[in-house]
Amino acid sequence: MYRTHNCGELRIADVNKEVTLSGWAASIRDKGGLLWIDLRDRYGITQLLMDENYTAKEIFDTARSVGREFVLQATGTVVERESKSNKIPTGDIEIKVSSLKILNASKTPPFTIVDETDGGDDLRMKYRYLDLRRNAVQKNLIFRSNLAVETRKYLAGQGFIEVETPNLIKSTPEGARDFVVPSRMNKGQFYALPQSPHTFKQILMVAGFDKYFQIVKCFRDEDLRADRQPEFTQIDCEMSFVHQEDILNTFEGLTKYLFQQALGITLADFPRMTYDEAMRKYGSDKPDLRFGMAFVDLKSPADAEFGSGVDVVPTGFPVFDSAETVVAICAPGCAEYSRKQIDELTEWVKRPQIGAKGLVYVRIEADGTPKSSVDKFYTPDQLKVWAEKCEAKPGDMLFILCGEDEKTRKQLSELRLELGNRLGLRKGDDFKPLWVVDFPLLEWDEEENRFFAMHHPFTSPKPEDIPKMDSDDRATLKSMRADAYDLVLNGVEIGGGSIRIHDRDLQARNFRLLGFTPEEAEAQFGFLLGAFEYGAPPHGGIAFGFDRLNAVMNGANSIRDFIAFPKNNQGRDMMIDAPDTIKLKQLEELGIRIVPQD
Amino acid sequence: MYRTHNCGELRIADVNKEVTLSGWAASIRDKGGLLWIDLRDRYGITQLLMDENYTAKEIFDTARSVGREFVLQATGTVVERESKSNKIPTGDIEIKVSSLKILNASKTPPFTIVDETDGGDDLRMKYRYLDLRRNAVQKNLIFRSNLAVETRKYLAGQGFIEVETPNLIKSTPEGARDFVVPSRMNKGQFYALPQSPHTFKQILMVAGFDKYFQIVKCFRDEDLRADRQPEFTQIDCEMSFVHQEDILNTFEGLTKYLFQQALGITLADFPRMTYDEAMRKYGSDKPDLRFGMAFVDLKSPADAEFGSGVDVVPTGFPVFDSAETVVAICAPGCAEYSRKQIDELTEWVKRPQIGAKGLVYVRIEADGTPKSSVDKFYTPDQLKVWAEKCEAKPGDMLFILCGEDEKTRKQLSELRLELGNRLGLRKGDDFKPLWVVDFPLLEWDEEENRFFAMHHPFTSPKPEDIPKMDSDDRATLKSMRADAYDLVLNGVEIGGGSIRIHDRDLQARNFRLLGFTPEEAEAQFGFLLGAFEYGAPPHGGIAFGFDRLNAVMNGANSIRDFIAFPKNNQGRDMMIDAPDTIKLKQLEELGIRIVPQD
Repeated sequence: MYRTHNCGELRIADVNKEVTLSGWAASIRDKGGLLWIDLRDRYGITQLLMDENYTAKEIFDTARSVGREFVLQATGTVVERESKSNKIPTGDIEIKVSSLKILNASKTPPFTIVDETDGGDDLRMKYRYLDLRRNAVQKNLIFRSNLAVETRKYLAGQGFIEVETPNLIKSTPEGARDFVVPSRMNKGQFYALPQSPHTFKQILMVAGFDKYFQIVKCFRDEDLRADRQPEFTQIDCEMSFVHQEDILNTFEGLTKYLFQQALGITLADFPRMTYDEAMRKYGSDKPDLRFGMAFVDLKSPADAEFGSGVDVVPTGFPVFDSAETVVAICAPGCAEYSRKQIDELTEWVKRPQIGAKGLVYVRIEADGTPKSSVDKFYTPDQLKVWAEKCEAKPGDMLFILCGEDEKTRKQLSELRLELGNRLGLRKGDDFKPLWVVDFPLLEWDEEENRFFAMHHPFTSPKPEDIPKMDSDDRATLKSMRADAYDLVLNGVEIGGGSIRIHDRDLQARNFRLLGFTPEEAEAQFGFLLGAFEYGAPPHGGIAFGFDRLNAVMNGANSIRDFIAFPKNNQGRDMMIDAPDTIKLKQLEELGIRIVPQD
Repeated sequence: MYRTHNCGELRIADVNKEVTLSGWAASIRDKGGLLWIDLRDRYGITQLLMDENYTAKEIFDTARSVGREFVLQATGTVVERESKSNKIPTGDIEIKVSSLKILNASKTPPFTIVDETDGGDDLRMKYRYLDLRRNAVQKNLIFRSNLAVETRKYLAGQGFIEVETPNLIKSTPEGARDFVVPSRMNKGQFYALPQSPHTFKQILMVAGFDKYFQIVKCFRDEDLRADRQPEFTQIDCEMSFVHQEDILNTFEGLTKYLFQQALGITLADFPRMTYDEAMRKYGSDKPDLRFGMAFVDLKSPADAEFGSGVDVVPTGFPVFDSAETVVAICAPGCAEYSRKQIDELTEWVKRPQIGAKGLVYVRIEADGTPKSSVDKFYTPDQLKVWAEKCEAKPGDMLFILCGEDEKTRKQLSELRLELGNRLGLRKGDDFKPLWVVDFPLLEWDEEENRFFAMHHPFTSPKPEDIPKMDSDDRATLKSMRADAYDLVLNGVEIGGGSIRIHDRDLQARNFRLLGFTPEEAEAQFGFLLGAFEYGAPPHGGIAFGFDRLNAVMNGANSIRDFIAFPKNNQGRDMMIDAPDTIKLKQLEELGIRIVPQD
């Protein structure tokens, strides 16, 4: 037996016990007559003590040959420490070693195995087995494992059945790019890895499974960004005989449960916001509600709810005069910003990633006087109207962008988030969930000159909007709303779903709107259209990004530290060095050939 | 709201309640003035009643337009049935319908949605969504979902962490054939889908995860047999600081727990048998212990334990005289077999799949007299010695095969299983687990003229056999045993694993034995050899075939009915019609080309 206890469990009550521990040498301190080794495993650290007064010489010799990360087995007696530590749960005791065995040696690691490591990203990826030995990473993956346990517990308790759907499926051109798998038995044909098990979960509803879920790997061959991985994990769910309200309630319940179980946090009921409102007030379909700074329209396309901007921005400043939209945010306490800080912020919004032409500010001095970069175009009284409209207090600062409506709102959304960061308003341990509902059904693509499904082609229009499907008018079609919803947490979309179409004719009409010929629809989704003819129930669902949920719940920005073996931005696993060339024989068996690249 | 209750929950206590149900029309009986519809969902069946005395005419009209598998929503009052049914839990009540809505129509299904369906395999695969609507299939998948829940519950309770390992990894030529995935970002290179997460779980042990598990999809591009699928699911586990005994105990515990939770069956402690003993007594490394009929050596290569066969088979019958091995099984109660039955059995063992040259029988008559097909070569007294050796009773029959030792045992193993089937001794609800231990480390491959790893290249030799690794003698190498074990249940291998090598030098020696050059070993497993240099703990693990475990626990032979969307023997998903051709643009992006086939 390699151990009687792990390295995290011995306490003062265990004093005098004869124990055997196994683990890694985290640190060694040799004071001549006394030598300590901190023995570490997943469960904690226990201090081993060797004392020349009673420890045999050969044990001392063995201990002196031990380096960092050696694997050791130590037997000895639990004793009370002379100088206790309250930094670790085992800090009251140490082990008087009577036997010490080196189970495996270790070279000196290329970086230190501590929370704040000296290893850079590339080194950490290559030696992922050492990086994963760090407590900081290990606790993320233990969190993830627990979150999966709790997810399954909740959903199983609600009557959901976990069904495994296949990974070798069929490529569909709609959506992102598929990873494909050449078939050896059907040469010239390919499987595709699923971007999501979407059609299968609809099929399971047709099959009467009623409530399905799966924690499942999905695959997208896209160019990678920091928070994207070619393979990622979803909590995928579908329910029959439900309206949107049933789904929102069920998965608000799941989210609350997970926060309670994993973090001990009780979330209040989630607010809801329509897509239109989110875009208008935050320029984003996933607003971060941890802080305010909602948009205030000073001038915008006629909008009854917010009032016309004409009263607020009178003619005067030619840039505003010619802009479709002038929109402001009030940054609390920013009146103190220096000229240099404002210039830097102006450069920030003018970077190509944001694309604003300039940034107008109105500083509200301590006495309420407005000072602005557009002072020469507007009177102080006019500026005060803006400040009132923005509910700005002395000491605040208005930042104003203008231009084409949609673009300006997106730019201001970026600025709002950036100011939130700079002002420390986006706290990792503050959680503000939000349901965004009533997404548009369709999205016009200027390049391809056609509509795309905003969610996906199986999303149901709102029943009252179905008659609009027969319109030829682009604006009418664009105004169609769907029974589609996103769950947003701290500005991150952690879940999204919709009520599906369950009627074959409606599905066919929707495919037509999306530019599918009946033949194309049949070739790609014939099995689903066929299934709809045999008694498809009303149904809908949702999918959570599980990697992202883990990251957001831990106040982290990157999903990489919540994935055991992530790939880098070139889609490469640096530890195993994949992808790699394969043998000619494999290519021959698959009936494919590599095209030489220039 | 589509329903207040499901179709399986209403009871006599609910009488007079106003309820709404949704589900499928399982059957419709129209008696003129009375009309009943059996409404079905996942949870059960509830009878809807329409009576011309009080049901509105338009409801009657709607009900008359309903066909099988229509999706309906019915509102009404729960009433006590006049003629109750004890076949279903809702049999005491029915619903007096006050409102009936057709939610979706259905074409007539191509086969009936009942337990014993009239659909053939191909039709069922194509219309899998209807096949899955059958209770017989649905209960299998619900069983599977529950079994996964219980597996996770047990392992989490034992401190195991579920870690997701990547699906896009690297192709390794050892083992079965990989499915590969061309990389767009690294043209000319490929990922491979994992045949198992094996190396990753070892890496997780090096990373200090201590106890890992995962219920995980694995992939093998092999020619398919009835019980093989290109993608299948494993319960994959690994533990650090363990000896073989720790692993056997932990996973015997899991298996017992699953039987208790899922089937209510308490299994006794599992017997253990060495690989050598299993091969000698049953001609198989996965003997079915639901019945006896162990092999009795009448003549075999010198074997002290079983005694030399010379005493039992004296010279006389030239076929036996020249055979390396003569081995018998005693089939209880088979003395009644007719000439025709014996001839048929003889033909059965002579089929190429079995390959025996012939079959000798010794019938033990009611008075104990032996009658044999080799009567003219042996005296009755000689035959009686055989019968005694086989512990045959009057009414039994000995079946004897002879020839080269290994082949003969395999043939007799097949015959034993066949007789077990014919005699009804292999009951689906009788469970006989067995640990087979002490597998050989190496397996000689005559064709490739080299050793292969019997389990896999990372399996540790038994410590006492390690010195044999330096031998040049093939027999010595062949005699090396490994710390490798299989869990066998009713003749099916449901799990297998080993203690792993954790020492870089030992791993390198093992690779050398398997014919890897140091460069090949480095190229394929360099990351693992590297990891072994940084403090790898002693570790070992096991993987269970989850599909098969489900099938065996349900007394089923095929895993297909426990997989929601299985592929056929050509690796084809007949419902979605995958694999399929992909677009030229996709091939171009991947930098590959299809080689035209003749």
